[in-house]
Amino acid sequence: MTRIVCVQLAPRVGELDANHRQIVSTIAETRADILVLPELATSGYVFESAAEAAECAIPPDDPKIGEWAAAINGDSVVVCGYAERGPEGVLYNSAVLLDSTGILASYRKTHLWDREKLFFAPGSQPPPVVATRFGRIAVMVCYDLEFPEYTRRVALDGADLIAVPTNWPEVARPEGERPPEVVIAQAAARVNRVAIACCDRSGTERGQRWTEGTTIVSDDGWIAATAGPDGRAEWDADLVSARDKNISTRNHLFGDRRTDLYGLSR
Amino acid sequence: MTRIVCVQLAPRVGELDANHRQIVSTIAETRADILVLPELATSGYVFESAAEAAECAIPPDDPKIGEWAAAINGDSVVVCGYAERGPEGVLYNSAVLLDSTGILASYRKTHLWDREKLFFAPGSQPPPVVATRFGRIAVMVCYDLEFPEYTRRVALDGADLIAVPTNWPEVARPEGERPPEVVIAQAAARVNRVAIACCDRSGTERGQRWTEGTTIVSDDGWIAATAGPDGRAEWDADLVSARDKNISTRNHLFGDRRTDLYGLSR
Repeated sequence: MTRIVCVQLAPRVGELDANHRQIVSTIAETRADILVLPELATSGYVFESAAEAAECAIPPDDPKIGEWAAAINGDSVVVCGYAERGPEGVLYNSAVLLDSTGILASYRKTHLWDREKLFFAPGSQPPPVVATRFGRIAVMVCYDLEFPEYTRRVALDGADLIAVPTNWPEVARPEGERPPEVVIAQAAARVNRVAIACCDRSGTERGQRWTEGTTIVSDDGWIAATAGPDGRAEWDADLVSARDKNISTRNHLFGDRRTDLYGLSR
Repeated sequence: MTRIVCVQLAPRVGELDANHRQIVSTIAETRADILVLPELATSGYVFESAAEAAECAIPPDDPKIGEWAAAINGDSVVVCGYAERGPEGVLYNSAVLLDSTGILASYRKTHLWDREKLFFAPGSQPPPVVATRFGRIAVMVCYDLEFPEYTRRVALDGADLIAVPTNWPEVARPEGERPPEVVIAQAAARVNRVAIACCDRSGTERGQRWTEGTTIVSDDGWIAATAGPDGRAEWDADLVSARDKNISTRNHLFGDRRTDLYGLSR
């Protein structure tokens, strides 16, 4: 079994050092095979200006990210979101997948939400699907998850688990209902038979409330774990079972697709 | 407002005349702008042999379907599933969209579930999206709904409502959870801002239990209505609101798509 853990941190906007220390201590103290941390865990989210966003961004070779890798216990894998300063000062809302040797894969969010468009450039590459000792892990960020084409893509690329650092701004929902993003994750998991670990953030930032909706969805689309008051969601997963896409004697989730009829290049 | 009604009938396998009378009386007695009836409402579902399925199938010009149209109240529109005998005796799991003048559109299910593959040929055309006086209605059948490419397609084609005749065989689900097909419908509605009306069947047929999960999902992905003990789900919908795909100041559900990154022709 593979222990997947999400820890719902509360980064503070602009406080890079404090946020970094929080990430390092969480990595060092969490017993997990796969640890998922929030989107923009280094920087906070609610920037007042492009200048402030730029001050909060770090390049992928920043020593801080090396310290995350150094803090990793044994063979564990960590996925964490950060504000990336790319070439020529262009900013990206990025996530890295690391083990103790350093960065295994990077991803720049391609579907940007609302004011993110003022600060970040969208990525130009699809999510990586990385073969790790625990299974194949895809990385996408927050609003990316709401495009079923994208979750399908990484499933077709062989993902066993989609790791999703998120910052979900709180939205209205009917009494007793789960956050809409979780319902979307459940459906994506079910129709692709792939597990999905969404790590949200907590706290209130410049008046913005967060859903605090951290949830791990099993590969059959049900809720495997949600964050309790301690902000942690944990699930011991059998990720390999997700590779069997036969869902009846005569049905295969991918084999049944009728790509001739989808017309989705629009 | 547009009154959408689903009526969860219990057809009996092979009893064409009784099933037909049930359809006619339901059409005649239901006050609805858009009435959705189950998949294979004419024939039942659990066929013992290809010969039995063939005996249960009718061509699109069968007088029975003319009687459905004749039973329609005023301007109403009806969607109903039936076992179709096509050219050269090929069978299809089909649905028609009718008004009082007759058939406005026909659709043959393209994603066939399990033993349906023994009896039916898959359709070769995507779901129609039909402009009616109540809005644009797409028609698909049961398992079709579980392909997010398909719900996306009809949304891009302009659907305000997806009408889905279904026969959902009961599957295990955790205590307190909705049927998985409903969760999939909620996500499809939310990511496309399109309403979805799923009309399931009821009863037990040759040992097969049905979910009896008839549900209308609003265009924001929440549950608008489910069938009560009388098997009816009713919702007064504002279908036109679904046409605005802007979900924030800077986000448009379709405009945000990154078709360059989906790679879905596989």
